[in-house]
Amino acid sequence: MYALHPQLADETVPVCDLDLCRVLLSKDANYPWLVLSPRRDGLRDLHDLNDADGIAVLDEIRRCSQVLVDLYRPDKMNVAALGNQVPQLHIHIIARFTADPAWPGPVWGRVPAAAYDDAARDALISRLRAALGQNG
Amino acid sequence: MYALHPQLADETVPVCDLDLCRVLLSKDANYPWLVLSPRRDGLRDLHDLNDADGIAVLDEIRRCSQVLVDLYRPDKMNVAALGNQVPQLHIHIIARFTADPAWPGPVWGRVPAAAYDDAARDALISRLRAALGQNG
Repeated sequence: MYALHPQLADETVPVCDLDLCRVLLSKDANYPWLVLSPRRDGLRDLHDLNDADGIAVLDEIRRCSQVLVDLYRPDKMNVAALGNQVPQLHIHIIARFTADPAWPGPVWGRVPAAAYDDAARDALISRLRAALGQNG
Repeated sequence: MYALHPQLADETVPVCDLDLCRVLLSKDANYPWLVLSPRRDGLRDLHDLNDADGIAVLDEIRRCSQVLVDLYRPDKMNVAALGNQVPQLHIHIIARFTADPAWPGPVWGRVPAAAYDDAARDALISRLRAALGQNG
């Protein structure tokens, strides 16, 4: 049985479920930052995905990346499966800007997380759902 | 025409060519660290890969990850396409240990790179080539 890891649940807000992955928005407003959580039990590393799920994850990475590119016109996309802190496979999809607080380094651990204004976050989630073709 | 970006060429040693990607070994001996460079011109982001190349990259990520798992028995694999510094698509595949100098953070920018002893590096490259089923 799949259940989102409590630390991931704590650090994100759910956006929608795609065919394989739950799409989450990071609560850190410093960066437009989605997290994909494949809804499978017991996955830890990207290489744990079977062929069909691997293809699905790649497609969902591409869809989420394209949505962030269309919404934000970033200078670069970062895609990473690290999982040193949370032992459940999840994939970060982060829109990066040369003016963002961690550029050109990776985002993790550079500056304290910034909070979204609630209304701005809800509006963003609605836009993300619409862009991903999901109603909720 | 594909040509490896000069900064990637400078920071790595070639291991072998798989069907799509050139496999490179990072010169930083702090971590067992491979880099995959898809041999296609003009790619910048993971979402720039077409479907067939995406499937090939995923397969080659899995092969390289498994080789590092088999050789090193790491605590975690990190897989990332960042590209904030080098504007040519490349995928990092890094074996991580709870005792490594950057754990649990990402490896980039934490500690100065450590150099391989030449003989140790050459022996490792031979082992990697054999494990990847390549002679050179």
